[in-house]
Amino acid sequence: MSKQASTNRRQFIKNTSLLTAGLLSAPLINMAQESQENTSDSIYLVGPQEGYSPQIGTLLSTMTMMRTWVINTVKDLTVEQLDFQIDDKSNSIGAMLLHLAATEKYYQLNTFDEMEWGTWSDEIKTEWDVPSGLGEKGRELIKGNSIDYYLTKLEEVREITKKEFAKRDDKWIMKSEPFFENKPTNNYCKWFHVCEHESNHRGQMKFIIQRIPK
Amino acid sequence: MSKQASTNRRQFIKNTSLLTAGLLSAPLINMAQESQENTSDSIYLVGPQEGYSPQIGTLLSTMTMMRTWVINTVKDLTVEQLDFQIDDKSNSIGAMLLHLAATEKYYQLNTFDEMEWGTWSDEIKTEWDVPSGLGEKGRELIKGNSIDYYLTKLEEVREITKKEFAKRDDKWIMKSEPFFENKPTNNYCKWFHVCEHESNHRGQMKFIIQRIPK
Repeated sequence: MSKQASTNRRQFIKNTSLLTAGLLSAPLINMAQESQENTSDSIYLVGPQEGYSPQIGTLLSTMTMMRTWVINTVKDLTVEQLDFQIDDKSNSIGAMLLHLAATEKYYQLNTFDEMEWGTWSDEIKTEWDVPSGLGEKGRELIKGNSIDYYLTKLEEVREITKKEFAKRDDKWIMKSEPFFENKPTNNYCKWFHVCEHESNHRGQMKFIIQRIPK
Repeated sequence: MSKQASTNRRQFIKNTSLLTAGLLSAPLINMAQESQENTSDSIYLVGPQEGYSPQIGTLLSTMTMMRTWVINTVKDLTVEQLDFQIDDKSNSIGAMLLHLAATEKYYQLNTFDEMEWGTWSDEIKTEWDVPSGLGEKGRELIKGNSIDYYLTKLEEVREITKKEFAKRDDKWIMKSEPFFENKPTNNYCKWFHVCEHESNHRGQMKFIIQRIPK
């Protein structure tokens, strides 16, 4: 977020804080359940973002919050923990992190470049088909990487998403094609899926983290 | 959704379908991964909904899509499968389903009734604290119910959310209070969390379903 935007957001926070003066204090249960670190002051203000169309900015703010929670769930894991397999058919947390980057990459190609799903170049397939597919190949090939490797990949892909989002408008986000169930699916829905898909895997990561041998 | 709204949505689909004529066909990978059943024609068109303010309608459309995917993940499970414990500290799928209803109930009280988190009445706590907290009490007390029991609970709570959403406007959804990390958190963020939280647990449900003994 630009410095100016950040200033605007802080101002917005001030204003809404005034609006909600006398409202309720933070819930302990949630503080305990979802306590995170090093997040910006505006991360929990879902809404339009400076430099993006209103709907795209609102969508991006949910993606940013979700990504922050994913990062905070895994950022302190060792290589051994990232490679840990809970059973023969499970995906490691490392493989799932690269899977999130692969998913976002493919939705970039589908929604920004309007490529039919799976018609990616061989170069793209070589880099991303294994993390996209996970399973046996993923277990065989995605291992031995530090958390920095995965977070850098995720960040590199996200930067492209943000750059492309900034070029587009709210008419684009409502554009649809037959996709899920071959039903009309708009770009907002596809990118909401990219976002909720991170939560889906974060749920599995948390399940696995609780079961990594001490 | 009202019949009129449903008609409007169908019209919207026609229009967007025309707009996107010649666009790409459905991706096989995604069709296979996320194929669902019995969803409305407009479920994958995230955006404003008849009878709701624009932002609230858009949020609700993501919640409806997410809920549909949760339902399709669990709708055919037996009581034994819903009660299945993958290990001593795991939550059953049944308990997680009731946990989703409890979470939504508590966010209703916090955002609609502006109650401080945890200050619910004894009657509310008696019904919802166990599914909200899960863990040992949940394992002990939430079992033996059919899928209809859980889906009915989820539907009853969701109906209240929709009724309350319909009474409110986009100014309300931007209203914030210190919440996550004691940082300004608006109602859009809280309800986005209710939505992504369903995906978080759906990820765990899918993990468990793949491991239920045949």
